[in-house]
Amino acid sequence: MNDSMSLNPISTVEIAKAAHRIMPYLHQTPIMTSEFLDNCLGHELLFKVDSLQKTGSFKVRGVVNTLLALQEHRELPEHIVAYSSGNHGLAIAWAAKKFGIKATIFLASYTSPVKIQACLGYGAEVVLTDTRAEAEELSRGIGANGAYFLHPSDNDLVIAGNGTACFEALQVVAEPSAIFAPCGGGGLLSGTLLASRLVSPRTKVFAGEPLQANDAAQSCRALNIMRFDESPPTIAEGARTLAITPRTFQYLQQLDGFVEVEEEEIIYWTIWLTHLLKVTIEPTAAIAMAAAYKWLGLQGVKQRVLVIISGGNIDTSTYSQVWYKNYLDKVPGYY
Amino acid sequence: MNDSMSLNPISTVEIAKAAHRIMPYLHQTPIMTSEFLDNCLGHELLFKVDSLQKTGSFKVRGVVNTLLALQEHRELPEHIVAYSSGNHGLAIAWAAKKFGIKATIFLASYTSPVKIQACLGYGAEVVLTDTRAEAEELSRGIGANGAYFLHPSDNDLVIAGNGTACFEALQVVAEPSAIFAPCGGGGLLSGTLLASRLVSPRTKVFAGEPLQANDAAQSCRALNIMRFDESPPTIAEGARTLAITPRTFQYLQQLDGFVEVEEEEIIYWTIWLTHLLKVTIEPTAAIAMAAAYKWLGLQGVKQRVLVIISGGNIDTSTYSQVWYKNYLDKVPGYY
Repeated sequence: MNDSMSLNPISTVEIAKAAHRIMPYLHQTPIMTSEFLDNCLGHELLFKVDSLQKTGSFKVRGVVNTLLALQEHRELPEHIVAYSSGNHGLAIAWAAKKFGIKATIFLASYTSPVKIQACLGYGAEVVLTDTRAEAEELSRGIGANGAYFLHPSDNDLVIAGNGTACFEALQVVAEPSAIFAPCGGGGLLSGTLLASRLVSPRTKVFAGEPLQANDAAQSCRALNIMRFDESPPTIAEGARTLAITPRTFQYLQQLDGFVEVEEEEIIYWTIWLTHLLKVTIEPTAAIAMAAAYKWLGLQGVKQRVLVIISGGNIDTSTYSQVWYKNYLDKVPGYY
Repeated sequence: MNDSMSLNPISTVEIAKAAHRIMPYLHQTPIMTSEFLDNCLGHELLFKVDSLQKTGSFKVRGVVNTLLALQEHRELPEHIVAYSSGNHGLAIAWAAKKFGIKATIFLASYTSPVKIQACLGYGAEVVLTDTRAEAEELSRGIGANGAYFLHPSDNDLVIAGNGTACFEALQVVAEPSAIFAPCGGGGLLSGTLLASRLVSPRTKVFAGEPLQANDAAQSCRALNIMRFDESPPTIAEGARTLAITPRTFQYLQQLDGFVEVEEEEIIYWTIWLTHLLKVTIEPTAAIAMAAAYKWLGLQGVKQRVLVIISGGNIDTSTYSQVWYKNYLDKVPGYY
């Protein structure tokens, strides 16, 4: 099973296998639409809503796919470790409980109490560190000592699992003109690209990324991975990764483009999508819609677009940063 | 069709008919659960989530049932009028568009712009009045002049339609020990009681009501309808009705009880249910959970409880009133 660490690009078929593999364990999340939004924008938007996935985000798809593939090869570890400020850690804690294995999650001490609580609630061991870099170093260290270290995106099985959100969506959404997903470490977009190539190869695939955390867009422009020294200051927690990896870089370079968005655009769409879809939308998920909105504004004819809503885990402080804005009075549209 | 104005109690069978009637037009909304919450409370909670119903609340069930029943009798009106500060108006605006008829909604001028916008977006005419009482008076006046005036709860077809939320839930939830729903005008609870009597007659049915807006609980204690002079000051907008009506009073008197809850309890459960279920929860909907929580704390053995989540329409100012509280740090439980 060490082939999941190889840097050869994986076959698109792996996404279909992953979808079949995880199906008994996870939700097939709904596709949602908004007549009101479609009327405002003059385009057709379809949302794949992974806020309603187990643990509140798409991350559990990659984690469960990894554990099931290991189990098929009789290599299910007794102990899994990870660092994560959020959704990846939550997904591992939940999955470890389901598989009856031990989980250790390294979290920076500034992580919100409710996320720590949730990991503990699933029975995981939580270790708090001063910085994210320290969390990463320690978790890799334990991994080297026999536990299974699961990186949030630098792993083929994780990428294949993440791609199942798009794959599922394309079972019910016929050939959209474009798909948008948010870019953090690039794992969701890598899987999304593979799923789209497999099922709907003429569909364009775009990344949304915060302008303030645009390491992936910069890397693709420079043809070289660019690394932040410190976690970039965006409200979209899932996009605060320091750098993409060679594994995700190879897929990100094949995208049809990056759309970089401002913080205010992320907040605007967090509010509006929550209002329209009646599900929780984390700012990272709203990046994809902010990007789609910008792209749609440049199109001459009506488009059908799939937006991957990556998750809905928000803490109280993020809520209060988002909801003091009276953006609901400003109806979406192109003026 | 004027029999829908008679005060004779309606047959429980009307709920099943309504469910069949509205089915092609509306969503069968999901039942959601939270392992985390069940572990915290030591009980089993099932949520019927009408935040995900068309227009974001259960209200559209009653409105669509009414219009379809009228249509069956070739009495579909050309013009429908209503007063409403929220979900009922939104439901009428949406349904009128679907049925190709004119809608006029009377709203107090302090209604949030986003709700006014939503009614206008569905093509309804909106008339702003100084007070809610004036909105009621004017809409009844137009109704008397030939348009169809649709009261938010004082109508048998509305009650039967509202009962379909519980009826649908009881198709998949076997005989819960108790059902909780929030009390505003009493239409949802009347329908819920009838649905429960039809399908699961041993199940207890309870109303949750804000202590600060407890006219229905007071009325049932006094065996006489008590009326507020002014809209009571609760954060739960849907419970700010001045009084129940003789029609709903007859059903409310048959309930197994009222559980009155404080404003802080409503806010606490608005936050926690949003966090756990990943759907928007309006404070009115959280009343039912606040009531269930209080009741469950008094039970000696494990209970299975159905909570009707009435809707998820929240405006920015309510969000900011709710989300400044750091209640997510205070995990639910009985101490």
